[in-house]
Amino acid sequence: MAKFYFCGSIRGGRQLASTYEKIIKLLQVHGRVLTEHLGDDNEIQTRDRVLSDRAIHDRDLQWIRESDVVVAEVTVPSLGVGYEIGRAIEMGKPVLCLFNNGTKSVLSAMITGSPGVVMYDYSDPVELTNILKDFISQNVPRRTS
Amino acid sequence: MAKFYFCGSIRGGRQLASTYEKIIKLLQVHGRVLTEHLGDDNEIQTRDRVLSDRAIHDRDLQWIRESDVVVAEVTVPSLGVGYEIGRAIEMGKPVLCLFNNGTKSVLSAMITGSPGVVMYDYSDPVELTNILKDFISQNVPRRTS
Repeated sequence: MAKFYFCGSIRGGRQLASTYEKIIKLLQVHGRVLTEHLGDDNEIQTRDRVLSDRAIHDRDLQWIRESDVVVAEVTVPSLGVGYEIGRAIEMGKPVLCLFNNGTKSVLSAMITGSPGVVMYDYSDPVELTNILKDFISQNVPRRTS
Repeated sequence: MAKFYFCGSIRGGRQLASTYEKIIKLLQVHGRVLTEHLGDDNEIQTRDRVLSDRAIHDRDLQWIRESDVVVAEVTVPSLGVGYEIGRAIEMGKPVLCLFNNGTKSVLSAMITGSPGVVMYDYSDPVELTNILKDFISQNVPRRTS
């Protein structure tokens, strides 16, 4: 089964948590989302409050390593999301960045200008159904098991 | 002469621009700050408005590669700063992250938990004089030329 690492802001701000949840559900149609707790504040607290920051960092890097594809929602500026994108590129992972163009955010040139990133601007997560399907089919090798 | 790459938020928010300027001045006592324009909104516009995002990205990555040390102000959540820290760690650069603990920001576990990062919490940039001096003397080889 394909594995996806989804990145969204946690400590940088949770204003798009419901969007993250929708994207995670769209991804789950195609495989397993290692960071499926990211859409749910209660789940984040339950899973992460017992872990040290070092343990969270090392678990998340291991999940990026294991993943076939990294999908990042980049509308809310977040150090963690930027760091994860940087490390994913280092590992040669395909990276799709999704930006909601209905907000006042302006996206970093380090993301829009990164040759390792595929950018997609959207206004409603519903639009992402086919974008995600296409990105996954282009970047995840089909498996027989 | 030692070379420093300073990271601070640009499109993520400029509320700490004057702090960035102070840190850049403290660094300039010890060498050259490749990103010296980061403390000055006019300089950012003058330098970067003629460049594509790809050109900004590639110039900045080249500057990280050339630098002896990376210093990041991480109080304002920023995708670009997170990305730069991730890429700097990939290149094996010493990374010092400075966090102003007088704000409401909560720092990402990906930064505080990264074994490649040295963290320092401060309340006034004046405190940073000795921190920067020590970090530089520990991480920049002395050169005769």
